[in-house]
Amino acid sequence: MFGRSYFCGEVTEEAIGEKVTLKGWVQKRRDLGGLIFIDLRDRTGLVQIVFNPDVSPEALSLAEKVRTEYVLDVKGTVIARSEGSINENLKTGRIEVQAEELTIINEAKTTPFVIADKTDVSEDVRLKYRYLDLRRPVMFETFKMRHQVTKAIRDFLDGEGFLDVETPILTKSTPEGARDYLVPSRVHPGEFYALPQSPQIFKQLMMVGGFERYYQIARCFRDEDLRADRQPEFTQVDIETSFLSQEEIMGLTEKMMQKVMKDVKGMDVTVPFPRMSYEEAMGRFGSDKPDTRFGMELVDLSETVKDSGFKVFASAVANGGQVKAINVKGAAANYSRKDIDGLTEFVSVYGAKGLAWLKAEEDGLKGPISKFFGEEEQAALQAKLEVSAGDLLLFVADKKAVVADALGALRLKLGKELGLIDQSKFNFLWITDWPLLEFDEEADRYFAAHHPFTMPVRDDLPLLESDPASVKAQAYDLVLNGYELGGGSLRIFERDVQEKMFSVLGFTKEQAVEQFGFLLEAFEYGTPPHGGIALGLDRMVMLLAGRTNLRDTIAFPKTASASDLLTDAPGEVSGAQLDELHLALNLKKNQ
Amino acid sequence: MFGRSYFCGEVTEEAIGEKVTLKGWVQKRRDLGGLIFIDLRDRTGLVQIVFNPDVSPEALSLAEKVRTEYVLDVKGTVIARSEGSINENLKTGRIEVQAEELTIINEAKTTPFVIADKTDVSEDVRLKYRYLDLRRPVMFETFKMRHQVTKAIRDFLDGEGFLDVETPILTKSTPEGARDYLVPSRVHPGEFYALPQSPQIFKQLMMVGGFERYYQIARCFRDEDLRADRQPEFTQVDIETSFLSQEEIMGLTEKMMQKVMKDVKGMDVTVPFPRMSYEEAMGRFGSDKPDTRFGMELVDLSETVKDSGFKVFASAVANGGQVKAINVKGAAANYSRKDIDGLTEFVSVYGAKGLAWLKAEEDGLKGPISKFFGEEEQAALQAKLEVSAGDLLLFVADKKAVVADALGALRLKLGKELGLIDQSKFNFLWITDWPLLEFDEEADRYFAAHHPFTMPVRDDLPLLESDPASVKAQAYDLVLNGYELGGGSLRIFERDVQEKMFSVLGFTKEQAVEQFGFLLEAFEYGTPPHGGIALGLDRMVMLLAGRTNLRDTIAFPKTASASDLLTDAPGEVSGAQLDELHLALNLKKNQ
Repeated sequence: MFGRSYFCGEVTEEAIGEKVTLKGWVQKRRDLGGLIFIDLRDRTGLVQIVFNPDVSPEALSLAEKVRTEYVLDVKGTVIARSEGSINENLKTGRIEVQAEELTIINEAKTTPFVIADKTDVSEDVRLKYRYLDLRRPVMFETFKMRHQVTKAIRDFLDGEGFLDVETPILTKSTPEGARDYLVPSRVHPGEFYALPQSPQIFKQLMMVGGFERYYQIARCFRDEDLRADRQPEFTQVDIETSFLSQEEIMGLTEKMMQKVMKDVKGMDVTVPFPRMSYEEAMGRFGSDKPDTRFGMELVDLSETVKDSGFKVFASAVANGGQVKAINVKGAAANYSRKDIDGLTEFVSVYGAKGLAWLKAEEDGLKGPISKFFGEEEQAALQAKLEVSAGDLLLFVADKKAVVADALGALRLKLGKELGLIDQSKFNFLWITDWPLLEFDEEADRYFAAHHPFTMPVRDDLPLLESDPASVKAQAYDLVLNGYELGGGSLRIFERDVQEKMFSVLGFTKEQAVEQFGFLLEAFEYGTPPHGGIALGLDRMVMLLAGRTNLRDTIAFPKTASASDLLTDAPGEVSGAQLDELHLALNLKKNQ
Repeated sequence: MFGRSYFCGEVTEEAIGEKVTLKGWVQKRRDLGGLIFIDLRDRTGLVQIVFNPDVSPEALSLAEKVRTEYVLDVKGTVIARSEGSINENLKTGRIEVQAEELTIINEAKTTPFVIADKTDVSEDVRLKYRYLDLRRPVMFETFKMRHQVTKAIRDFLDGEGFLDVETPILTKSTPEGARDYLVPSRVHPGEFYALPQSPQIFKQLMMVGGFERYYQIARCFRDEDLRADRQPEFTQVDIETSFLSQEEIMGLTEKMMQKVMKDVKGMDVTVPFPRMSYEEAMGRFGSDKPDTRFGMELVDLSETVKDSGFKVFASAVANGGQVKAINVKGAAANYSRKDIDGLTEFVSVYGAKGLAWLKAEEDGLKGPISKFFGEEEQAALQAKLEVSAGDLLLFVADKKAVVADALGALRLKLGKELGLIDQSKFNFLWITDWPLLEFDEEADRYFAAHHPFTMPVRDDLPLLESDPASVKAQAYDLVLNGYELGGGSLRIFERDVQEKMFSVLGFTKEQAVEQFGFLLEAFEYGTPPHGGIALGLDRMVMLLAGRTNLRDTIAFPKTASASDLLTDAPGEVSGAQLDELHLALNLKKNQ
């Protein structure tokens, strides 16, 4: 314990009668009937200190100077609290410490916000004074959990023969993927390193190097415009193996997450995790990362309504689109026309031109479009959507992708709004059978759906040139409660396949060699089949800790404009520094 | 084991009779008497596969196509080797596997060097084909050891209540210390992040935040010209604690290293480690990181020779310098005049203007300068240097710092040359009582000997302004076998002391606030006393693995010009990338 007897939160009845030394921060001081009570806090919790003139008038007198967040060293005796002052909500609530000696180690100005779990101060203030924000118990508990999560992962992977190997942070810029952070070289004028978006290539090269089982809790970087759940630097659990099948890698990941859930949350999760093809996930949930903690699935009604008198539906189907609906059980009465207008606006963000609706009453489906459906169609709708009286049915008719996006998002919104989600559940789910490529209309070319090193399904290889869109990938995403926890794949390990892949992605032979020649060459020296997975650690901690803000899982995070409000980074540098890096500022062009 | 029965190196006699599946690389193929023998290798070792026409002519025929470094899948039966073909040097040397089925998983071109521990290929080729270099067993063993070292450290610190917390890589540039790597910001035109030289400030802020015990295996960056044992990015075991004394932090570090030595090397090291003040280390070994595995200490003869007829000695002392010598026991016969000329040249690099010498013979000290010393002086020299016949005495007379540097380096050189160093020893040593500041003649100001956050010895605080050079630091370096393994200190935790420190370092008040205002402010909100240590992980692994090249402990290291020969980083980037970063190249100025 090094110079103290207990941490504050761990002094219990067993210590009654002991002389103790405690150190910590003043949570609160109360003066009461000639006594002073101080709640002393450290990372383990609170303990009550009593200053009594009969015990030590010197300590009492010094205690009068003490303010909130002062750092104290207190020596005293642990005594039982009187019956009436026992606090059952506190682990240390049955005792208090009668102070015999007090040292003020350091003073504190009034903090800009109170150190307490509940706070209504703006996040910007919390970030500027992050060192105070981190004193809030809920923050410490999150980082303790983060430590436990990484420990569980490390212990598991160590037991399975994985080696923790560090890969470079100063690496090479690659044009594929997100935007790189660049680092100018002083020694090589005009040249730059890039911060890695992931250790992908290095981990593959380690497999070429016969390491067989590698992992790393790896820092990754993307210079992208930030959304709420993105950070310029983030951490992934990065795993790569040789000679394993997709099944084996998925099984290993399941066992790892099982251990994490057991060690960190004390929960037993069943393996194997449920699996769903990409196609099925998009069909049933309108999402490639479905939250399966509640139902309200998307139902395809295209067949039922394709000949309906409601032109919007019929023409959507006729034009190759879809008509799908969700059944919001028992919600008919909760949603007024105006509310539904709001939902219509919500889905329009996802490209949906409208949101049709029907309410189920005892005597049938009612609503502005009900007249377009005959008795038979109504019966079919009711059967397919498993309708009972009081249900609200919401329809989107559009291109397949729009229907999925709009209804998928609407389902999630309503699920949350109506409290349909059991927050105690942790629903893991594998999404498999991904397309290898995605066509980007704007760029007029294919992009890798995962990354350019993903192995196509063997039988689809001949289609890589003739019908790239139909090629499936040997890839798998792990989803938890509607969040993508991570993704993995088997990798291409043959030069000719990798070259074909680059060609489909629009690389010339020369470009492929210039960018990835070292990898292509490596594949010629006895490369084993290999594959792996990468899981987002920040997000994993966020979900396990029940937080909603990714920044709460990162000790010193950045804002949406990639600033550190605490240290005020980024900042200006001197002309001499720029000269050394062979750079000049070029501000006009972009302002 | 996922699709294979054993790793290659782990098939032993216990498996005789078993049908096994093995996967690995071809180390060697031999054709002998109609049979083919293949040594199959994976990261665990080798196993011999026999292809026999009587068992499987198909496998034999395919085996004829197999070349070195091909990747194979072999199915067969484990059999005992015949008495005459047992290889006791191999763990699997009492068995072989009779192949029944062979699959060539991947082919391999002829590798640019043989995959074997001993190699005489240049390091540049090894780095370019790092993935082949990593296949050499000695490389894998080093990274396995690195994994074990970090695991031992993590397990120990976890047990002591330390939390593994990640600190930012994109942070703020600070002018103090080494040169920063800079990262231009796209979002904030003209501004830059810096890669951290260490997590120093963040770990201190975590202490302000009440985390109390933090550690991180942290990547650090320095854009300095590289020596053999430096890399632009390196890894340190970064530890910080609150409320602990210097003694307690040193004790904790000792326990940690004790566990590392036990877990990784199976060695029991005694704690506490020996301690030596900076002053004593410089005096006895001419080094602040003495290798104590051998003697040949520096002996101060200034008093003895200050009135000697040898002017060089006498005037050195008269001018405030020193005369010191080392006694190279029994080496008189081994070093000719020409050899000693070589040593003179060696010490000149350290600023020594000469190297005086004497050889001890049965009838006294001989050599060009012996005539300057009378009988009494000779006797005193012999006594102080504990001279026996056959000893070689080497003297440097100069300023104190030059004497220390020159003789310290000479001692190490001779210790190695003469084989005086017991390579099986691991001599840990604490160096304490460091000066807080070093005066830099060129810059004409003081620099922090460790860093600007190091706590001065309390009693020396009044001297901070009056006599900065005499102020001692509450700092401690851990030395192992003549290498600085790491260093730590108690930190300043009071704003006024920190401000005084910045002032001594030549900061104006405004500069201090501009650069470190957030830290100064943090100190005002209840900062606990804190301190820590940082140990160089790369170097630790190098020493424990018995390697001499730091690059052999880093999977993908950089050359002395900070290049990655494998991926060819750094490299050029596009004009569009520069535009986005508001930068232009400025190549002329610096060429």
